[in-house]
Amino acid sequence: MATNEKTLNDLFHDALKDIYYAEKQILKALPKMAKAAQAPELTAAFQKHLTETEGQIERLEKVFELIGKRPQGKPCEAILGILDEGKEIMEEFKGAVALDAGLVAGAQAVEHYEMARYGTLKTWATTLGLPEAAKLLDQTLQEETRTDQLLTQLGDRGLNKKAA
Amino acid sequence: MATNEKTLNDLFHDALKDIYYAEKQILKALPKMAKAAQAPELTAAFQKHLTETEGQIERLEKVFELIGKRPQGKPCEAILGILDEGKEIMEEFKGAVALDAGLVAGAQAVEHYEMARYGTLKTWATTLGLPEAAKLLDQTLQEETRTDQLLTQLGDRGLNKKAA
Repeated sequence: MATNEKTLNDLFHDALKDIYYAEKQILKALPKMAKAAQAPELTAAFQKHLTETEGQIERLEKVFELIGKRPQGKPCEAILGILDEGKEIMEEFKGAVALDAGLVAGAQAVEHYEMARYGTLKTWATTLGLPEAAKLLDQTLQEETRTDQLLTQLGDRGLNKKAA
Repeated sequence: MATNEKTLNDLFHDALKDIYYAEKQILKALPKMAKAAQAPELTAAFQKHLTETEGQIERLEKVFELIGKRPQGKPCEAILGILDEGKEIMEEFKGAVALDAGLVAGAQAVEHYEMARYGTLKTWATTLGLPEAAKLLDQTLQEETRTDQLLTQLGDRGLNKKAA
């Protein structure tokens, strides 16, 4: 007999709190990354993603509402570790030609964390019969995927070559 | 005048040490995840990925050799945070029907971290004129992408429904 009654509803709620906390941390990190970037197109990409992140937080708040819970974050060690590595790059490569390539790499690690979490949340929302939540989560997943692609293009288009 | 002389070579070497450390942590975590999984197909997926991870570590050692450095890890806070979240799920959902869905989510966060890092390393290797290294890194990137897809299928195919 299973004595642990936790179900996918609990996992979904936990993961929602995790990514809500993560998005708020990302919101704090992005202005620093935009300021640190040397190439104007990279600063612009970070600023654009800052605006998107605000919208993604609002979507998460709607999803909390859809499951009848109040929006609440839960410390997420993963995003803290990923952002710490980004901070380390900003310090170690300050003033170096390779700084922007390092910033792109750090931002892509953030995007991939988000893509993993939103992909999971979207799938779980569908299984749980929450199509409206699934739609909101998918909108964010598509935005994160596009941001990751834009960063790849910026790297390919010159930031990496400048750094070499 | 830039006083920081660090270039893409330094970033590449740093990122190589980061993922080398991460792979070794993943190698330690996978047997625990395989043992915790309830569905035999999920245990099998983790065991298969354990064998792949051993091969990925060997590839990284070849890349170190190609740039004339000895294989060396560097503590990676990101993977430690991601694996800690997975451990937490294993504890909180022990004996619960939702455990496997949680394990899949944790493993997909690991895969996405690796996909981000190998994507970056492969691109940098190409920019640095290291085609052989780029090929090795791309082989691992393809493996990680396939593992992520397999995990998505396992979730869709029943683990999530069982958990709901």
